[in-house]
Amino acid sequence: MPNWRASFTNNLVGNLVSGFEERRLDALFISGGIDTRVKSSLSQQLHFLLEVDRLKSVERQNHCVHAKRRENSAEHSWHLALFALVLDLPTSVDRYRVIQMLLLHDLVEIDAGDTFAYDEEGHGDKLARETAAAERLFGLLPQAQGASLLEIWKEFEAQDSPEARAAAAIDRFQPILLNRYSDDPSWARHGIRRDQVLTRNGIIEHEFPELWSRLLQLTEEAVAMGILLP
Amino acid sequence: MPNWRASFTNNLVGNLVSGFEERRLDALFISGGIDTRVKSSLSQQLHFLLEVDRLKSVERQNHCVHAKRRENSAEHSWHLALFALVLDLPTSVDRYRVIQMLLLHDLVEIDAGDTFAYDEEGHGDKLARETAAAERLFGLLPQAQGASLLEIWKEFEAQDSPEARAAAAIDRFQPILLNRYSDDPSWARHGIRRDQVLTRNGIIEHEFPELWSRLLQLTEEAVAMGILLP
Repeated sequence: MPNWRASFTNNLVGNLVSGFEERRLDALFISGGIDTRVKSSLSQQLHFLLEVDRLKSVERQNHCVHAKRRENSAEHSWHLALFALVLDLPTSVDRYRVIQMLLLHDLVEIDAGDTFAYDEEGHGDKLARETAAAERLFGLLPQAQGASLLEIWKEFEAQDSPEARAAAAIDRFQPILLNRYSDDPSWARHGIRRDQVLTRNGIIEHEFPELWSRLLQLTEEAVAMGILLP
Repeated sequence: MPNWRASFTNNLVGNLVSGFEERRLDALFISGGIDTRVKSSLSQQLHFLLEVDRLKSVERQNHCVHAKRRENSAEHSWHLALFALVLDLPTSVDRYRVIQMLLLHDLVEIDAGDTFAYDEEGHGDKLARETAAAERLFGLLPQAQGASLLEIWKEFEAQDSPEARAAAAIDRFQPILLNRYSDDPSWARHGIRRDQVLTRNGIIEHEFPELWSRLLQLTEEAVAMGILLP
């Protein structure tokens, strides 16, 4: 066992993970003799950026198209941001704000987990769980910055701006593509019906008519392939 | 074996993967009787978005901080975009352009693979391999759009704008954090020395002096922990 690994292992013994984590992060808050109770903005930002690394461990139901495994929420967020970067959005929509929303929207899953689109029970207390998560996570940042990012997250959840609706439509459409083109579609695994997909994704019809026709075509093919119930 | 899986398997028999892939993608290019040789913008964009899904399979050398596995380039790109969203950048820097660069900068690894920061031989033909990849990938998009994204990628590579240098500094700093805080640091695995880290990451000193002091502190701790050679 190399030295550094032994030292990690020793550090772990007898400590709760949270206490261990706290000590690992200590270094972030100590900078040239400054009182460690006063965290610099940079320290708070780095703490946040280390914490959000956890999103790489949140598994979604959908498989990647090319990788033979489920997608995680961090790479999903990256994929959505690219959708927002290349798809034709309504001209009045601020594309940068849509991208910010998509980069941030799933962070709450670090605490609240991923709720499957067709899990009706899970959706019951989803907002309460996710709001608590958003407050904790954005609360790691310098106050004004955390408040401003929390605002972006709330705007996405409230769905009352064109940007939030564009972001939501993208978040709904990407899994349709993954289901149609991956070789282990979650639709087939969970016995999802076509009408469930159309109801759940109605927002796309209003925001992106061209994408909606494509969705109808993709679900029709999926039914023909036997991966979506008629 | 469910129906849809049998049909997938049958489709595969006797076909090269590329031919199979082409047929799977056919549906994207057929829309309401339009001549399939003329692909709509949306079809080209969706083809690009399916193709970039491959970045989720490109493994990097660094481990995630919280997940017990290597980071892939898609989730890495998402993480960097968040760094760009929350870190204090010089006021003259267009943060949105930095984020676009970071979302796109690693796509070339789909064809060219990830080149480890300290692999001097691999860096020899890196630019040629990556330029060919960028031309192929952005070439999937409608012409003007592909050209504009290729421009962003080239700007990042050329490092001659403040945005490109900010993006590069972030791309260099994130692995420092991952090395210091993950439990299987690539520095230890590859026997990297402190002076290699400082030379490779010199750009951070010029672009982000505050981040550079933090880097010096993190590498000093890493040497003390035995995960970085002095």
